[in-house]
Parts: sequence; structure tokens; C-alpha cells
Amino acid sequence: MNTAKPALPDHLGNIRIVLSRTSHPANIGAAARAMKTMGLTRLTLVAPNLMATPMTPEPPVFDPASPQLFKLPEESFILASGAADVLEQAAVVATLDEAVADTVLSYALTSRKRELTSPLKTPRDLVPEILQTAAAGHTTALVFGNETFGLSIEEVQSCNRLMTINGNPGYFSLNLAQAVQVVSYEIFSQTDNPMTHLIHETHPATHAQISGMIAHMESVMDDIGFFNRRNGKRMMRRMQNLFARANTETEDIDILRGFFNTVKKRLGKE
Amino acid sequence: MNTAKPALPDHLGNIRIVLSRTSHPANIGAAARAMKTMGLTRLTLVAPNLMATPMTPEPPVFDPASPQLFKLPEESFILASGAADVLEQAAVVATLDEAVADTVLSYALTSRKRELTSPLKTPRDLVPEILQTAAAGHTTALVFGNETFGLSIEEVQSCNRLMTINGNPGYFSLNLAQAVQVVSYEIFSQTDNPMTHLIHETHPATHAQISGMIAHMESVMDDIGFFNRRNGKRMMRRMQNLFARANTETEDIDILRGFFNTVKKRLGKE
Repeated sequence: MNTAKPALPDHLGNIRIVLSRTSHPANIGAAARAMKTMGLTRLTLVAPNLMATPMTPEPPVFDPASPQLFKLPEESFILASGAADVLEQAAVVATLDEAVADTVLSYALTSRKRELTSPLKTPRDLVPEILQTAAAGHTTALVFGNETFGLSIEEVQSCNRLMTINGNPGYFSLNLAQAVQVVSYEIFSQTDNPMTHLIHETHPATHAQISGMIAHMESVMDDIGFFNRRNGKRMMRRMQNLFARANTETEDIDILRGFFNTVKKRLGKE
Repeated sequence: MNTAKPALPDHLGNIRIVLSRTSHPANIGAAARAMKTMGLTRLTLVAPNLMATPMTPEPPVFDPASPQLFKLPEESFILASGAADVLEQAAVVATLDEAVADTVLSYALTSRKRELTSPLKTPRDLVPEILQTAAAGHTTALVFGNETFGLSIEEVQSCNRLMTINGNPGYFSLNLAQAVQVVSYEIFSQTDNPMTHLIHETHPATHAQISGMIAHMESVMDDIGFFNRRNGKRMMRRMQNLFARANTETEDIDILRGFFNTVKKRLGKE
């Protein structure tokens, strides 16, 4: 069995996550981690506006005149865990228009009612288009707004599409990294990347092996007078169905047949 | 347009999230929040084994003899944000077998190779079964292990099924709350709960309104001699297609027709 790790689909590299005006360095790190778990690595930060935290009492200030000089604080890297490479390669720009300039499709993540014409679509609805566009070599962007205020009307205007994560109507409070996680998961799940590297080698029993074992069981039941006035045919059909649907393995067959043989021996039938 | 919040499907109440031997109070809170965003509210904690953190220097110790007396520390409630009700109603038990005793199906979340017979299945594969079982009134449980060690072989044995979240083969590091988020999202997404409460009232243009506007555009183009030697028929077909697929609204039609009228007036054609 080939258990080499399957390669990531190349075109995931054409999908960009854009975080606009993020306030907390920890959220940028957690988002990077969420992305990387699902094979996404391209991150663009628009005018990060980081607040002080106990861990980062003096976060770096974003200077629109020289965005490329912006350095994320240590707190982002701690939360990113093994995804520091995503943060190190992140682009930093001053406006959302720059972040989506080279994209053909950009998706504004929003769950607010908007004065907008697009119908609401979920990640599940939109990911086929994203993956097709990426596979054709074009860049797409998923755009997430500020933790408290979301995306402004102007930011939504810069995107082609709305994307809405559906959820509990009475409590919708996905945080930034959770929203990135859900969207990244949805993208990866639709790539149908194989899970071969996680599958342990199995030895499933064939139809004939199961039927043979059931016949063995029936023979023991017959020996011990179990069928007396019972509907034996129906019972054996149920047993056949039970083992047929249970992903029975050859080792299970060996155990059961060994058990039946021992019963027969004790009964002096073998 | 009816924009009342759609009710949550009742049978989500038959789906339980089980966190076994969790180490960090913050993760329990973040998991509760992740659950509630997707309409899940039933949480069971198995023998929580909480470590000290800067926020909770002396976390409560779990006593297997009286699990019902266990109280979660403040840190859990802070991370739970608006989902404190989920924590307050959480059951606390000493063993995983107690947590799944009344379930008909329980799913062990795992991404490790295991000496187990079940084939690996994803949340997408398994959620139809979970929702059908829940709708039939039976309880199912999704079981998440310790943050560092995952589920033990014995814990996996207590479950009927394995569930594996697929992801980047080179970096699979979903944390506990992210894993709960992904599974909860997958469950909610398959309920097909409507998003009507989020949809802004729209006034989509009819086919005839779009065709009328295109005829108006064509007339202006003709007036200004734009078609001179160009393939006018093909261009107008493209314009018709463009507006037909763009979810054009009646207000857009009004804007464009107003614009065309003004051009005609300036040209003295009206």
C-alpha cells in the first residue's frame, strides 16, 4: 500500500486570503495557522491596525507610505504555531484595492444585511468557482474584514462576490480565525485530495469469506439445536447482512471460525 | 419579504459534543463558542484535567468520585463569549463510556493511523448519517480527545465510527476549538437552514426589462455611429448576456436608461 503523503494541489497557490484592517496580532497568527492546515499559504494584510495586548504592549504601527516595512509582532508568530512561513511570506499593502488588483474574483465575507445586489451564497456554493478559477491559473481572493466592524461598504464594493457562512441565527459570533478556518476547510474539502497517508493497511473480508463463516455459524447453531421452532433462514439472513455491512476483516473471520471450531470440538462434533 | 429569524432544527439538540480529558480551560470555552455558532448546545466533558495558565493559576481539580461538582474556571467563560449557557448546561462525567452510554452512534475524531477496521471517513461523508439519526430522535456524539495526545486506543474503542478531518498532509495542526468548529460547521451546513434573515430585499430585473434596456443602449450606439463597420449584432448579444448573468436589479436598469436618455437629449435625438 502506498502511504506516501499526497501532494497538495498546485492551484491552491492561486487562492489568497486577505485580512483587512485586522486589530489583533494574535488573530493574524491564528488565521495563518488555520490557512496552512488546509493547504493555503498566500496571505495579504491590508493596513493592519494592531492594538496593544498584554503580550504585545507596543505593537508596530502601520505606515501606509511604506507598507512593505511593516513587521508583525511576536504574538502573531506564537499563535501561528508551525505556520510562521505563511506570516513571513505575507504581503502587506495599504488598501484593499491593491490586495485584489491582480485577482479575477474576490469574495467579501459578510453576514450582514447589505444594500447590495448579489444574492447571498455560502462557501459550499462558491468554492467550485474558486477552485475552477484557480485551476485555470487565475488568482482569487477571500477577503475578511476587521474583527469588530467587518468589511466596510467600500471594501465590499472592491469585491466581485459576497460569501456568507451560514450559522445559528440566534448567535452568530465566529471569530476571524474561525471564519478563515471554515472557508479554508471548505476549499480543501472540495479538492478531493486523497487521505491515503492516513489510512492503515486493512484486509477486508470477501463476500465468500463472510458467507463461509456464516455457514460455519449456522452449522454450530444446528448442532446445538438452536433453530428449534425458530425461523432459521431469517436469522441467518440477518447475520449475513450484519457482517456484510460491518467492514468485517479477515482477522475477524479467523476469530469467529476459531470460536465455532472450539464449540464443535467441545460438543464432540469435530 | 419575511425576514424573521429561521428557527434552528430541533434535532440539533440530539447531537452531543464530547471533549475528553481536555487540558486547557480556554479550549473548552472556545469549543463552546464554536458549537453555538452552528446551533449545537449539548456539551459533555469527560474528566477535564486542567492545567494552570497565567489567567487560571489554580484551575479546579477533577474528582472522579463526584464529577457533577466540577466547576469550570472563569477562563473558560471568557473564551466562550456569548456561549456561557453551553458551559453552564455542560455535563461532566468521569469516563467516556458514561458520555456515550445513551448514544446510538459515536464518532471518534482522529487523524492518526490506527489499528482499526473502520475505513476513514470525513465529516462530509458522515454528517448525513448523524442528521438522519438525530432526526429519528436518537442521540449521537462527536468525541474529541486531549489537545496533545488525542484519543487513546481505549477511547476510540468506545466509539462506533472514526471521523477524520482531511487537510494539508504536510502540516496538520488543527487545534481543539478549530476541529470542533469544522465539524459543527459541516453539521449545520447540511441542515439547509435558510439564510432568509440575512437576505436584503432585492428587486431583480425581468428578462423583458433587461432586453428593453439593451435595445435602448443599441439605439444610442446607433445614434452616435458606434456600429460603423463593427459587428453590432455580436456586440449586443454580449451585452445582453453580460446583464443577464449579473443579477441586474431594476434600479440598475433605471440608472442605465436615465444615462441613455441623457445622451440622446444632448445629441438632440429625443
